[in-house]
Amino acid sequence: METHSLTFDRLLLASGQELGPVTLAYQTYGRLDEKGGNAILLLHALTGDAHVAGLVAGEPKPGWWDPMVGSGKAFDTDKYFIVCSNVIGGCRGSTGPGSADPKTGKPYGIHFPVITIADMVEAQRHLMDYLNVPTWLAVAGGSMGGMQALQWAASYPERVRSVIPIATTLKHSPQQIAFDEVGRQAIMADPDWRGGEYYGHGQPERGLAVARMIGHITYMSDQSMEEKFSRRMKTDGFKFSFDAEFEVEGYLRNRGAHFVRRFDANSYLYVTRAMDYFDLSGDKLFKPGAPIPRFLVVSFKSDWLYPSYQSRDIVTALRSRHGDVTYVEVNSTYGHDAFLVEYDEQTRLIKSFIAKTHAP
Amino acid sequence: METHSLTFDRLLLASGQELGPVTLAYQTYGRLDEKGGNAILLLHALTGDAHVAGLVAGEPKPGWWDPMVGSGKAFDTDKYFIVCSNVIGGCRGSTGPGSADPKTGKPYGIHFPVITIADMVEAQRHLMDYLNVPTWLAVAGGSMGGMQALQWAASYPERVRSVIPIATTLKHSPQQIAFDEVGRQAIMADPDWRGGEYYGHGQPERGLAVARMIGHITYMSDQSMEEKFSRRMKTDGFKFSFDAEFEVEGYLRNRGAHFVRRFDANSYLYVTRAMDYFDLSGDKLFKPGAPIPRFLVVSFKSDWLYPSYQSRDIVTALRSRHGDVTYVEVNSTYGHDAFLVEYDEQTRLIKSFIAKTHAP
Repeated sequence: METHSLTFDRLLLASGQELGPVTLAYQTYGRLDEKGGNAILLLHALTGDAHVAGLVAGEPKPGWWDPMVGSGKAFDTDKYFIVCSNVIGGCRGSTGPGSADPKTGKPYGIHFPVITIADMVEAQRHLMDYLNVPTWLAVAGGSMGGMQALQWAASYPERVRSVIPIATTLKHSPQQIAFDEVGRQAIMADPDWRGGEYYGHGQPERGLAVARMIGHITYMSDQSMEEKFSRRMKTDGFKFSFDAEFEVEGYLRNRGAHFVRRFDANSYLYVTRAMDYFDLSGDKLFKPGAPIPRFLVVSFKSDWLYPSYQSRDIVTALRSRHGDVTYVEVNSTYGHDAFLVEYDEQTRLIKSFIAKTHAP
Repeated sequence: METHSLTFDRLLLASGQELGPVTLAYQTYGRLDEKGGNAILLLHALTGDAHVAGLVAGEPKPGWWDPMVGSGKAFDTDKYFIVCSNVIGGCRGSTGPGSADPKTGKPYGIHFPVITIADMVEAQRHLMDYLNVPTWLAVAGGSMGGMQALQWAASYPERVRSVIPIATTLKHSPQQIAFDEVGRQAIMADPDWRGGEYYGHGQPERGLAVARMIGHITYMSDQSMEEKFSRRMKTDGFKFSFDAEFEVEGYLRNRGAHFVRRFDANSYLYVTRAMDYFDLSGDKLFKPGAPIPRFLVVSFKSDWLYPSYQSRDIVTALRSRHGDVTYVEVNSTYGHDAFLVEYDEQTRLIKSFIAKTHAP
């Protein structure tokens, strides 16, 4: 596998600003059939990237949804043409705050425009046209990936046959906004953030690590933390110190330290902001006069960050328009992380759902 | 009302270290009867203090449990002698990391010994003796106050007639430790923390504010945040900025900014550490051969920080020893904050429970 990139001149953003040139990093798997009817777009979450499956030179781990994408898997690369791109605003090859601003030749930093989930999808639409995909057989993703999937249904329902939003919501709740805001405040409180102009000086590592630690708590469930860590200690009994004495403390510190090596702090600000702005409640999921794609909506019982009621709200909205929707609440203890863990159940659901979805 | 203080020479801590001299700030309400049988100890949570009710000179607000303490209230000052003291390790008049270390004459800072909930209770036992209270008719508190109440039952069951642990736990779970740890990391990541030696330089305000913001999210419920904020904006539509555009963002920032004016960052480290160490699971709630006080255990349905299952674990432990225990899960939407909000139900429960509790 290797990561490709597409560059196009400009993108008109929801804010009214223009961004350009715009580069999208992407990967493809499998082959597009002659009618272009077998293409599936996979959409990543907050810190994901185009590398959804397999091994890529220079990266130690397989892609973020590797057990779901490949020969014979849920997204079967023998049958389907799979596409995954890094979102704009990100830091994994697509244009984001760390990219050079053509006006100055220096990184955009905080002068990068605030982008939305709809802007991410609009950039993906450019990629879709470039790849000669007339219609996606399915668009699918978890968490922020699910928001993009929903946005595809809202923006281009005539070019999407089916939508698979997983562990996601029609709109960020105040609690979800609050967790994002605290992460942003942790980053912006770090003097190394330098008002966003830290490129060349090193990242605001401490603030970004704190943001990531908060994130990790919200991705797990109370029960999965109990199962993984309980009150086990790294030390031989209490040391009466502020060191990482409990295993869970060591885990969080490690996750934070690891994260700052691979993710840009400003991207964290921009991508979380896009999620907070996201709101397809009311009638906004539906484009007037357009067909409604088929939906498979999946949530996880122990996910308290994107609770099942938010998925049921998606289902309710679709049923109010007589949409074709299947909803499954998977009985998992893994919390929000479940969409990156519960492969058997997701594979079973998605395989049969896509098999029943037909190109136009 | 005014705040008194008691100073005693030394306290042998759970760590094996000695702390001394030790000052406890405390307030009392009502009068101790002749037999000393009407005394009730109220125990505060993480950021509380001795000022539990009424108005105190120099403080704009009534005490933290004012609607619960006073003439005719749940803790009826016409009938009972009410005592409340600031915990050691705190910053509201009792000895803590901001106090002068007698060895150096300078604030302890990070050289303050790590203390435990049992150490807090041991200091309160000194106050009890000083006040000539032979036996508490009740010890009561929410959250960390509930831990202290449980610790009283474990350390001095023969001197406690009844225990009212509210919205609390026998032991901090890994999720609870994790939230505390992220708060501590936010503080310690702030360069203004200066390795804990910031006295005279100003607080690590940014880190402490982030810690407080995290706390506030965990004190509310998803539903109470929805009711209080929904997605309402402070601005007239999206500004495509990182300002506090959503009301919930403004609220969190205000709470953070307010908090750093009244609470010491090092105290935040020490007091959260005491909570993380707390563990009275297994048989540790019971002192061999001692009587078990009566218990009223209260939890709140929407409290996800100290979920009801943790209160049920207290009840199960007590019932396994044939303890006299009443358990009520109050049907509140306020999350963990409910113990500071749901006064009617708590008043009804506590009044009748104490009325049935008798001095020896």
